[in-house]
Amino acid sequence: MNTIATPLFNRVAFIGIGLIGSSLSRVMRRDGLAGHITVTARTQETLDTVVRLELADNVTVDPVEAVRDADLVMICTPLGAYASVAQTVGPHIKAGTIVSDVGSAKNCVFRDIAPHLADGVHLVPGHPVAGTENSGPEHGFAELFRDRFCIITPGPDADADAVARITTMWHAANMEVESMDAEHHDKVLAITSHLPQLIAYTIVDTAAQLGTDLKQEVIKYSAGGFRDFTRIAASDPTMWRDIYLENREAVLDILGRFDEDLTNLKRAIRQGDGDTMQDVFTRTRAIRRGIIDAKQHTPEDQKS
Amino acid sequence: MNTIATPLFNRVAFIGIGLIGSSLSRVMRRDGLAGHITVTARTQETLDTVVRLELADNVTVDPVEAVRDADLVMICTPLGAYASVAQTVGPHIKAGTIVSDVGSAKNCVFRDIAPHLADGVHLVPGHPVAGTENSGPEHGFAELFRDRFCIITPGPDADADAVARITTMWHAANMEVESMDAEHHDKVLAITSHLPQLIAYTIVDTAAQLGTDLKQEVIKYSAGGFRDFTRIAASDPTMWRDIYLENREAVLDILGRFDEDLTNLKRAIRQGDGDTMQDVFTRTRAIRRGIIDAKQHTPEDQKS
Repeated sequence: MNTIATPLFNRVAFIGIGLIGSSLSRVMRRDGLAGHITVTARTQETLDTVVRLELADNVTVDPVEAVRDADLVMICTPLGAYASVAQTVGPHIKAGTIVSDVGSAKNCVFRDIAPHLADGVHLVPGHPVAGTENSGPEHGFAELFRDRFCIITPGPDADADAVARITTMWHAANMEVESMDAEHHDKVLAITSHLPQLIAYTIVDTAAQLGTDLKQEVIKYSAGGFRDFTRIAASDPTMWRDIYLENREAVLDILGRFDEDLTNLKRAIRQGDGDTMQDVFTRTRAIRRGIIDAKQHTPEDQKS
Repeated sequence: MNTIATPLFNRVAFIGIGLIGSSLSRVMRRDGLAGHITVTARTQETLDTVVRLELADNVTVDPVEAVRDADLVMICTPLGAYASVAQTVGPHIKAGTIVSDVGSAKNCVFRDIAPHLADGVHLVPGHPVAGTENSGPEHGFAELFRDRFCIITPGPDADADAVARITTMWHAANMEVESMDAEHHDKVLAITSHLPQLIAYTIVDTAAQLGTDLKQEVIKYSAGGFRDFTRIAASDPTMWRDIYLENREAVLDILGRFDEDLTNLKRAIRQGDGDTMQDVFTRTRAIRRGIIDAKQHTPEDQKS
């Protein structure tokens, strides 16, 4: 537990608060990073949850009220809401304020948010690479971020102090912070996150369209591998829809490569070509070893 | 721990002993199911491991010696070895002996093993639906099977007593035993296990073919979802090659459906059709709920 004597931010406004936002607010409260936290959300139900869980000092359905006097505006909505949120609150954010986010695509931040910010407002987009298949503020927890990477994508003219403060914030959440170009981020995440998620959705949907009897048996015998995909495919539909809409190019590019590789394996199966299969199935092990060496696995991975 | 006073089988022969076979031998020794266990394997290295781990009373490189006088012959090799194993040992298995296996495809047992067995030898194919990404006898553990399903696929003329004894054996391993037609088994498992595994191999292979720099970053940021696939794709290459060779038809059928579904999602992304995505991503949640209701999840699933 890091306790910082002076709050890192006097007043923080969360716009939208789901799994990630609520986990960050818990970190802020645990470590005293914020002097005051205001949360705004679209529904009163979400705000009631925030009040019940004591995640904020103040809640409001009015985003303009939320951002007034804020030193940090954290946008934690699905990506599809960025443009309209920025349009609404942009004119009311004072100079010197930092605006950041937690979305899984970063090019769109510069396209949808940046144009609505006044000069002197500091944009530092961020993406904590962490999550679970659960969504909503009630599922957040401060330890969600521990030992994961947070990728920040400040533009070339970003304010150095703002970048340093966002970095300090994620360090407090026990994340390792890396900085990269937004476009490069979107390409890397298309491979590590967006494609796997799409494939999981597809395979579970293929099963969902089976006849009732066969579907029941698929559920019954899901421990054979399918179960892992259903966990991934239980993630928030709106969040993911927006990711594919916003990171379309990079996703379609890697999907094209995946398609080619799948076609090759399909041909090997059809032709009874065991050597090709053995080659592919062997070289994939090297990637796993790389991940274990890079410590990007969990205790659960090792156990199971 | 069930302790059975009289051994269920006087003499058991394991032909091949990897993760599954060694886990079963541990159950047998824990519960006294076998009066005597002989293990045969292709390599002296495997047999040395079996001796070191005290998984058998006797080891031999000669499969014919192993099956002589056995009451139960458990074939635990990859599927591709079934035909040659059966051809070698078939003539030496005495009447009254039960022959079973643990393979992930079951039609091929009747094609590759049955023709080599004498009248009076009882074939009861089985498939304990359990496993980890690790292979080899050193990774086995008796609790591997707990609360999982074992599917047995006895033919229409199977010996009732033999079926009962194989069922008792898997019950001792704390499995729930279900009986079904071999062809139906192969269709269900193509969906729940063989397709997910193939997809995991493909996606990890797509990443394996990236340029070095990008590949290093994919490994670094793998926590975003990709990591789950690498664990699955670290499984034994030979075992899986044989599964695709032996269950070709059912796998190609479900792969065709998966391809169609992926093409639909790809089109939705390209066209910016958020409604189609939202529909698919929402209905996949129902399958997950079904699995949670059917208790086919693990404590790790809930935690993460």
